[in-house]
Amino acid sequence: MSAAINNIEIQKAKTSKISSIDFDNLSFGKVFSDHMLLCVYKDGMWQLPKVVPYQPITLDPSSKIFHYGQSVFEGLKAYKDTDENIWLFRPEDNFRRLNISSKRLSIPELPEDYFMAGLKTLLQVDRDWIPKSEGSSLYIRPFVFASGNGFHASPADEYMFIIATAPSGSYFSGKLKVLIEQTYSRSANGGVGFAKAGGNYAGQFYPTQLAVEKGYQQVIWTDDTTHEYIEEAGAMNIFVRINDTLITAPISDRILDGITRRSILEIAKTENIPVEVRKISVKEVVEASKNGTLKEMFGAGTAAVISPIAAFGHEDKDYDLPTLENSYGALLKKRITDIQTNKSEDPFGWRVKV
Amino acid sequence: MSAAINNIEIQKAKTSKISSIDFDNLSFGKVFSDHMLLCVYKDGMWQLPKVVPYQPITLDPSSKIFHYGQSVFEGLKAYKDTDENIWLFRPEDNFRRLNISSKRLSIPELPEDYFMAGLKTLLQVDRDWIPKSEGSSLYIRPFVFASGNGFHASPADEYMFIIATAPSGSYFSGKLKVLIEQTYSRSANGGVGFAKAGGNYAGQFYPTQLAVEKGYQQVIWTDDTTHEYIEEAGAMNIFVRINDTLITAPISDRILDGITRRSILEIAKTENIPVEVRKISVKEVVEASKNGTLKEMFGAGTAAVISPIAAFGHEDKDYDLPTLENSYGALLKKRITDIQTNKSEDPFGWRVKV
Ligand SMILES: Cc1ncc(COP(=O)(O)O)c(C=O)c1O
Ligand SMILES: Cc1ncc(COP(=O)(O)O)c(C=O)c1O
Repeated sequence: MSAAINNIEIQKAKTSKISSIDFDNLSFGKVFSDHMLLCVYKDGMWQLPKVVPYQPITLDPSSKIFHYGQSVFEGLKAYKDTDENIWLFRPEDNFRRLNISSKRLSIPELPEDYFMAGLKTLLQVDRDWIPKSEGSSLYIRPFVFASGNGFHASPADEYMFIIATAPSGSYFSGKLKVLIEQTYSRSANGGVGFAKAGGNYAGQFYPTQLAVEKGYQQVIWTDDTTHEYIEEAGAMNIFVRINDTLITAPISDRILDGITRRSILEIAKTENIPVEVRKISVKEVVEASKNGTLKEMFGAGTAAVISPIAAFGHEDKDYDLPTLENSYGALLKKRITDIQTNKSEDPFGWRVKV
Repeated sequence: MSAAINNIEIQKAKTSKISSIDFDNLSFGKVFSDHMLLCVYKDGMWQLPKVVPYQPITLDPSSKIFHYGQSVFEGLKAYKDTDENIWLFRPEDNFRRLNISSKRLSIPELPEDYFMAGLKTLLQVDRDWIPKSEGSSLYIRPFVFASGNGFHASPADEYMFIIATAPSGSYFSGKLKVLIEQTYSRSANGGVGFAKAGGNYAGQFYPTQLAVEKGYQQVIWTDDTTHEYIEEAGAMNIFVRINDTLITAPISDRILDGITRRSILEIAKTENIPVEVRKISVKEVVEASKNGTLKEMFGAGTAAVISPIAAFGHEDKDYDLPTLENSYGALLKKRITDIQTNKSEDPFGWRVKV
């Protein structure tokens, strides 16, 4: 699995788009850096990755990506500190999760070096694209999809692995109002919910649109059997604080094993925050809100970092969260972003220099 | 919704590939006709469809199809009778189901005429590609996918609707051995299982691979909550005959509302075959097999037509189905293909002349 590569071929773009980008007003994931990493699977193996100019992809109409949703992706960020050093946060975890997702989708797994050395080379080539301003970063999108052809519902024989990057600002603006879903579901027991599979996301669009029409920005998914337990949000795991205990749902085959979630659990321990990883019933959250013991809710994910939830809706009623002085969310967000951006020590060894 | 189009623009291919095709040895969905229908959604509306040469599609690496699985498809067939007439089977049902799928995936719905007139025009242009030999047909693949750009998990603002066609032989060869799945699942309650969404198919590949390694060709999916009820197969609905009653599971938000299934139910009535549409427990099927009342099982779908099941596996045991003289499957297959290929009357009004 770990073919070592000494040198990654680099094909430089003839011109750079960088002067056209307003780095002070970045949205999320809408402008793309000059280069991308490209790696092709054919003849039964992953060919050597290359850095190439960011460029269109040409596919046959029968390519399986168009028909059978055979695709997985990852999301991580590169940060630049005041000394122009470039940092990644737990990138091996993204690599491992990409392969976990790939396996579930019958996509051939990638050698670690192709991912890690490929990513680092790409970031060096496009280092000027990494924003420095507070709250901005270079969003990194590794993805793999079926490029092989044929109208037959079976795994493709060719794939593309690409890493593209986008200088980005924050994912959400303002405080979040979320709806606890009681009709639709994100994933099945024994399904692909734990994988970052493309199809998991499109399936969320319609229920989210319905929630948006009712004034919410995001849906909180519940288990598909009973809708009684809170699972996660569209692209975030969910934390609930009742009294002084921070609670999050356990990982299962329906829930993405978020790297932010995992990091928060570890940081919380060192901050002496009481943590519980267990099923959270909707009933418990509603009751805690009613009796005043529900102190905080927040979403946690790479794109959204830690996003405080201001209110949640459940069965046509809205429940406001209080505004706290000493919020766990704010503390944990500071701790994690300080580590990510090299503003603090990193006792966990999570930061990786590029 | 129903913008009438009088004339569909046709851009003819400069050369034809047809002489390179061996029409006597067709596989399924591997060679493609000279033309395709292309229709683009942008600026908030579906633009006029055109017939164009079958050609590669060029997309930005950030196109949402690569990341979020926002795609739906259909499958139907065109048949040529001995007088060179071209026939479709219930194509409006495919159109309607495409829009049902699209809605669930937040894809803009298509005007009926774009689909129907577009399809008929395409078939006229490529009429020489429709095979005449017994068991062969022109497999038609309408599909819609998100072509708009951006690393943001939200519906795209641009889409492509394409109809491509492939002269094809049979989908399965030989009798089927299937595994009743007890671990993995195809779809969630409140999910997208009733839609022909791309992501539903990739999610089946890995469990199917595991089944193939054990000697089965297909998985029979069960409900994700208990795995106690038989739902459907990868690309077929499932029928079970116990004594003289033909049974199939009811449609739900987890099961595709198959056009073949629906047609079989209607034909069975006119043949005085007792039919039940109700939940089928795995236990019931295993017991019926043990006590000899399980007479037949077959899959039903456009690609597979009616495919007899020779044996099923459940919890490490295999159960053989008997070989029948008067099989419902064989009778129903003859009735439905005779209607499709204009070899019999069509009392139901299902056949549509192109
Ligand atoms: C469904 C889902 N849950 C949770 C997360 C958070 O995971 P991470 O913290 O690794 O970004 C993401 C985003 O990656 C996601 O897509
Ligand atoms: C999951 C699934 N079930 C059943 C079917 C059968 O449907 P139809 O008879 O309309 O082809 C298909 C194929 O379209 C399918 O993909």
